[in-house]
Amino acid sequence: MAIGFLDELINVPGEWLRAEGPESDIVISSRIRLARNFSGFFFSNILEGEARRQLIEMVREAIAKTSLLKESEFFYNDKLTAVDNEFLVERHLISREHAREKRERAVCLMKDEIISLMILEEDHMRIQMLQSGFKLKEVWGTMDTLDSQLEKSLPYAFHPEFGYLTACPTNVGTGIRISSMLHLPALVMIKQLSKVLQALQKMNLAARGMYGEGTQATGNFFQISNQITLGLDELDIVDSLEKVIRQIIGHEREARQALLKSRKFRLQDQIGRALGILKNSYIISSNETMTLLSMARLGLDLSLIGGMNTRMLNELFLLIQPSHLQRIAKRTLSAKERDIRRAELVRERLKSVELA
Amino acid sequence: MAIGFLDELINVPGEWLRAEGPESDIVISSRIRLARNFSGFFFSNILEGEARRQLIEMVREAIAKTSLLKESEFFYNDKLTAVDNEFLVERHLISREHAREKRERAVCLMKDEIISLMILEEDHMRIQMLQSGFKLKEVWGTMDTLDSQLEKSLPYAFHPEFGYLTACPTNVGTGIRISSMLHLPALVMIKQLSKVLQALQKMNLAARGMYGEGTQATGNFFQISNQITLGLDELDIVDSLEKVIRQIIGHEREARQALLKSRKFRLQDQIGRALGILKNSYIISSNETMTLLSMARLGLDLSLIGGMNTRMLNELFLLIQPSHLQRIAKRTLSAKERDIRRAELVRERLKSVELA
Repeated sequence: MAIGFLDELINVPGEWLRAEGPESDIVISSRIRLARNFSGFFFSNILEGEARRQLIEMVREAIAKTSLLKESEFFYNDKLTAVDNEFLVERHLISREHAREKRERAVCLMKDEIISLMILEEDHMRIQMLQSGFKLKEVWGTMDTLDSQLEKSLPYAFHPEFGYLTACPTNVGTGIRISSMLHLPALVMIKQLSKVLQALQKMNLAARGMYGEGTQATGNFFQISNQITLGLDELDIVDSLEKVIRQIIGHEREARQALLKSRKFRLQDQIGRALGILKNSYIISSNETMTLLSMARLGLDLSLIGGMNTRMLNELFLLIQPSHLQRIAKRTLSAKERDIRRAELVRERLKSVELA
Repeated sequence: MAIGFLDELINVPGEWLRAEGPESDIVISSRIRLARNFSGFFFSNILEGEARRQLIEMVREAIAKTSLLKESEFFYNDKLTAVDNEFLVERHLISREHAREKRERAVCLMKDEIISLMILEEDHMRIQMLQSGFKLKEVWGTMDTLDSQLEKSLPYAFHPEFGYLTACPTNVGTGIRISSMLHLPALVMIKQLSKVLQALQKMNLAARGMYGEGTQATGNFFQISNQITLGLDELDIVDSLEKVIRQIIGHEREARQALLKSRKFRLQDQIGRALGILKNSYIISSNETMTLLSMARLGLDLSLIGGMNTRMLNELFLLIQPSHLQRIAKRTLSAKERDIRRAELVRERLKSVELA
């Protein structure tokens, strides 16, 4: 059952890669995550057996009472295979940590993948909303509603002075993490990105790779997120992050224009070569593919490449990931087999793509 | 006048790249060069002014009396521009040394580029025959005839014990240098080429790059030639070199089959990527182009690439050289301009080439 539902997902890109919404040439996605814990239970790490099962059922019942999650699917971890778990991680629907948890846990998903809930991750419940394009405020609006709907039937652990209590003190207060995934190839190319990252650090913002904490920034994708969760209103956090991201977008756009002006041939060359390799390789790693697809995406944004749209290209970023390849193949693949299948898939998908 | 004739040449590949003749998938060309000097003149290096002019006229008259050079063109160096000289070097019709000589010198060419004569290079006269494919004996037959025709009207400096006298002692005796240009990508890929080169050294044979002595072996092209010119009959030298080359051809063929068998994907990958870059780059050096064209040529030989023939591909090896690009552009180009024009030319020429 679980697998059937996940198999349906493979045919569409995850919401965060749909290339819709404002500024979607640079802002891949807007994401908000809330951490919530319940009074009357130990924190997840020391919660065991029957209590875990009780907590999961309590959340499941609460979900059933909301309007926003009426159409959701609910999975217990014993129904999820290793490839299923990895698949959900690749689609940014659950965290690596949650995928690794062997004890009782559950996942709740909306089919459009905009809302997902992890039950018994580091916190008792983490609610995520993920949408393509730059629309943090809109996302926050829905999240706020959902949070209120769930709060009606769940005993949120809330302290009048500290706010929402969380397993890790860095999340205490609002329990909110807001992030946007940006594609910043031009800033990387003109070697201005490190400046941007330094500035972010000073503002207590974090920049991470595509797959969150501890992951490398492959393919020139950067997740920019708030670090401070305490002592601020959620809307203030959204506002200040939006302002910063708007500036970064401006810098990236300037960098792209500067490249087009001062080194058009070099730029065309890099984009062309990337496309040439993607269209003609027979063995390719996911890392190399991400790097080359990033150049192709830039080419598309600058109209230097034709014959496809951003959504198709974004979808490829996802399909080339290990467990997506295995789900397509309907079997486990060795690393070498994946490199061959990945090359085949990319050649096939980019067949009609040409330099403009 | 000179320039007009050279402009005609640009539209056809040099004879040595016509991809005709036996074993032309591996043996690009067969080349024989004879060094001849005349009694009554100092060697070229110390010969000056009027004596140089006299020598040139003497050779010109002798040429006119031969049947084989009846249709030839004759150029004095003051008619050759820097680009003309470089152009002739790139087509293997004159040596770099000859191109650099500022004093009186001359070049005689057959339009089919099979026979060329350098007058007042290191030796008074060097006769070259260059044909595509593996046919050293055939080439030697014609060369022998031409040599006899010229000898009738030229005072060859010949010593009963040492044979033909030459400016450099390494050429004394027969004055012959026989070479074949081989394309050995598979031996390079399976790392067996150094063994082959070591064996050649033991047999007193030399292996050089595409542009002769002191040049690097770019594009997996190797010129194999005799070193010993003294104490052997010309036909014996041809024979023994033929035997060795036949062995190398065998090794290269085995290596290609081994690659197809044991690492087909890797091979396809390398060939595909090379083609992908060639078809999509906007700035490319001649060295990189040679390396990538070498892979494309291997792909063509192994039927992994379609949409073109070897001759078209071979022609590209020549057209991408600096002075060929400048002759096409009809003006001097900076290195950067050449890299851009080269990429443009290659993209255009390989437009219809695809992986099979």
